[in-house]
Amino acid sequence: MTAKTITVARDLLASNKLAAAAIRQELRGRGILGVNLLSSPGSGKTTLLETLADRFRGRFRMAVIEGDIETERDAERIRSKGVPAWQITTGGACHLEARMIGQVLGDVPAEIDFLFIENVGNLVCPASYDLGEDLRLVLLSSPEGDDKPAKYPQAFLSADALVLTKADLLPYLPFDPARAAAEAQAIKPGLAVFTVSAIRGEGIDGLAGYLVGALERLRSGLA
Amino acid sequence: MTAKTITVARDLLASNKLAAAAIRQELRGRGILGVNLLSSPGSGKTTLLETLADRFRGRFRMAVIEGDIETERDAERIRSKGVPAWQITTGGACHLEARMIGQVLGDVPAEIDFLFIENVGNLVCPASYDLGEDLRLVLLSSPEGDDKPAKYPQAFLSADALVLTKADLLPYLPFDPARAAAEAQAIKPGLAVFTVSAIRGEGIDGLAGYLVGALERLRSGLA
Repeated sequence: MTAKTITVARDLLASNKLAAAAIRQELRGRGILGVNLLSSPGSGKTTLLETLADRFRGRFRMAVIEGDIETERDAERIRSKGVPAWQITTGGACHLEARMIGQVLGDVPAEIDFLFIENVGNLVCPASYDLGEDLRLVLLSSPEGDDKPAKYPQAFLSADALVLTKADLLPYLPFDPARAAAEAQAIKPGLAVFTVSAIRGEGIDGLAGYLVGALERLRSGLA
Repeated sequence: MTAKTITVARDLLASNKLAAAAIRQELRGRGILGVNLLSSPGSGKTTLLETLADRFRGRFRMAVIEGDIETERDAERIRSKGVPAWQITTGGACHLEARMIGQVLGDVPAEIDFLFIENVGNLVCPASYDLGEDLRLVLLSSPEGDDKPAKYPQAFLSADALVLTKADLLPYLPFDPARAAAEAQAIKPGLAVFTVSAIRGEGIDGLAGYLVGALERLRSGLA
């Protein structure tokens, strides 16, 4: 990269940081926990959100902002669960930016508890963009291999929790959840780790409890 | 993005194109088929190359340039197959660029038949960067889901062939290879499609034959 490119990238990140700070302040003011989900394509972000929608139904209210290069598919899946969802199509860009979230934020109902933001499927670029969330989850599915944290460190370094997904496929794969967790925690000490099978609903209670705990901390901080 | 950012991005792509053209000319002059592999993290690019190394041993000579954000792991795996391999670590960048390949090219033995370039695991950014290859393969693994071509169209549009990997997991997944192929071919008419299980060696003959055919065409074009 040329010096000029680096400067432009820094300017973009600085302006993104300002937009993110405004979103964080607004969400906290409304008592809403913002959660940003990062992963490779096909790691199970949308399926995890569908499962959380079932788990939270009648207890907590959620909304979802979906990020994709193209198509409205993921937002349609979420809406079919009775959850409000907005699709942002980046038209080529490899990540969501805070200003894109800001454009949707006015439409998000005030009375929700959780605002989930499903980022573009990409284990690299989204890690550099704060979206104003209070909690960042990185997903790693068992078919991707337990060697990924060291190869894509920024996503794991920037996350609050690691969700190891597709545990139902573990019998057919060489994936070692303990190795994946240890490698990720070597990058980010104290990283919370949850192992789940969203399609079977296994391990979801632990993750849901973690999210509710974070929501309660956010709200007690307001009190 | 601002107008300035777009201009800088265009300049980068234009200078990449020039570097790629020089690489393509050099590889063709040497009678080497350059093959660029694109996919999400964990779709099985390295495992496919290990399997091709076994299949080609004694018949064709290959070398591999590995791209990763961090770690030398993939190059080590390839070298353990007796295949020369160079690791490029991008240190954060989400794709390989032609100039990175150019820096390694002088070390690549003149007598090889195939130069495989394994790009950074990312279904978005690498699609925009010509690396001087003659053939581009995009991999999609069955656990990622058959809905990915429409969501990440550029990777499929820019590819010559689609390799559906991890076919051994099909019995445990809702993945429909015919749907994935049809969706990809709707984006890129005439896209060649191969379904493989690299760890079982299934479907590799068809792909190997395709690569050898492309090598023969390249060399007959020189004659």
